[in-house]
Amino acid sequence: MILPKSLKVLAVLLSLVSSLVCAETPKPEIKWRALKLENTALMTLPTGKVVIELAPQFSPKHVEQFKTLIKQGYYNNSTFYRVINGFVAQGGPSEEQEKKHKVPLLSLEGEWSITNSWPYTQIQSPDMFAPITGYKQGFAIGVSTLENKAWLTHCPGIIAMARENQPDTASGHFYITIGQAPRYLDRIMSIFGRVVYGMDNVQALKRTQVIEGATKVSTQAYDKIIAIELMSNVAKKDRIMIEVEDTESPHFIDYVKNRRSYTADFFYRKPAPIIDVCQTKVKSRMMSNEK
Amino acid sequence: MILPKSLKVLAVLLSLVSSLVCAETPKPEIKWRALKLENTALMTLPTGKVVIELAPQFSPKHVEQFKTLIKQGYYNNSTFYRVINGFVAQGGPSEEQEKKHKVPLLSLEGEWSITNSWPYTQIQSPDMFAPITGYKQGFAIGVSTLENKAWLTHCPGIIAMARENQPDTASGHFYITIGQAPRYLDRIMSIFGRVVYGMDNVQALKRTQVIEGATKVSTQAYDKIIAIELMSNVAKKDRIMIEVEDTESPHFIDYVKNRRSYTADFFYRKPAPIIDVCQTKVKSRMMSNEK
Repeated sequence: MILPKSLKVLAVLLSLVSSLVCAETPKPEIKWRALKLENTALMTLPTGKVVIELAPQFSPKHVEQFKTLIKQGYYNNSTFYRVINGFVAQGGPSEEQEKKHKVPLLSLEGEWSITNSWPYTQIQSPDMFAPITGYKQGFAIGVSTLENKAWLTHCPGIIAMARENQPDTASGHFYITIGQAPRYLDRIMSIFGRVVYGMDNVQALKRTQVIEGATKVSTQAYDKIIAIELMSNVAKKDRIMIEVEDTESPHFIDYVKNRRSYTADFFYRKPAPIIDVCQTKVKSRMMSNEK
Repeated sequence: MILPKSLKVLAVLLSLVSSLVCAETPKPEIKWRALKLENTALMTLPTGKVVIELAPQFSPKHVEQFKTLIKQGYYNNSTFYRVINGFVAQGGPSEEQEKKHKVPLLSLEGEWSITNSWPYTQIQSPDMFAPITGYKQGFAIGVSTLENKAWLTHCPGIIAMARENQPDTASGHFYITIGQAPRYLDRIMSIFGRVVYGMDNVQALKRTQVIEGATKVSTQAYDKIIAIELMSNVAKKDRIMIEVEDTESPHFIDYVKNRRSYTADFFYRKPAPIIDVCQTKVKSRMMSNEK
């Protein structure tokens, strides 16, 4: 009975090979990154809570000023006074409220210099608005290796400072993008954070502009910004603790790769292997605030 | 005094030239197009009213079935049961409700054939997801002259039929895009209309998916579709009469051209002359419903 024996050997060999193959291609697990409390803002709106991750690593001066203004209560009881459907929700204090504060003008932080070896996760090259797009520490970026520059890009849910016509004129009023990414604003505006929770509550804000012929919205009806606080200053029980996916981890890289190949049965005809960086989601999850 | 006289003549000549130049470049006026009542749907949501222009010229079978189902009351008291932030709001009747209706499956209407002389307003070429993008009768389109095809593209606010994995499996459940355009769905889904009023009310719908760790939304809390009616069947006093900009008119062409050149003082540094078709707005206006 040499055959059964050799089959057994074969089975053992196959199982060895199989375990080796499996060991070589383990499915990477999602890697989470906890937000730093001091770089997280909690916005309280009539529509609900919003959590914003600030990006001091990319826009240090804007984040510093935003945090200073938060601590001064600058944004509390201010207004979303320019909410344009499909574009931005812009807010800040009234002229009257503003008088109480001395807000310095900020120099633009629209892009930064990089070296050839600067690490990030590439998404698409070329993209219509950037030679390369990618993700870095949870933020969608544009990259130019020719110019050795990188910049945060205007995907939905970013927060940036409004400004006058000149580049270095931002102070405290900000906007959150609520529609198709206005990427023509890349590099000429200072993005300094992104919404990681509660974007639906931003989307639910009352629009302040209506179409021709429709009933105008009275300024009294504009939605208030009830408060913006630093999460580190929020009472422990009221904190919203968010972790976000590590966009430089094997799991995220794998997710992007799989996404591009559109292998699901749903794609009876495969789309081109192209990804819009602003159509790529970075996962958030909520942690118990007891820990 | 020959000089003053010749100066006068010069002045007259200059004014003539100037008026001629001005006559040659009049600023085109906006051209409006009234929606056909029988191709307009009025959706009543808990968040407000939504007006949808249907596109029988592009997706005749889907529009016909949608209208038939509307007349049957198929959508009344149904639900937005799949509302994913930044992606789609999908709705339709429950399995129980569905039993009352016999809804035939639809063949995909994802693209159509064009000739070389097929007229439309070009926006961008190449675009990341299409050789050419443009506008046709108010709808954002992709165009391939190589394939002699055109298709409606998944900009925010389009309405399309959901389907199973196979292409010809759509019936009555639909989705409205509420985030960054998922253009990888172009040509493999059947878009059959677009929201021309009340997109803010769609954006205000309760999301049915939450992030990991957040409190799940109960199905009881899902937003209802109170009703969808054809505007032609709505009592005159309750109609919302919308006109939209003619996207083949000189005014729109001029608007696109000006937009691309970013001449406003705000652009202290000019963005590249690129336009994302889904970032181009087609104006709507509301007419008195007395006329």
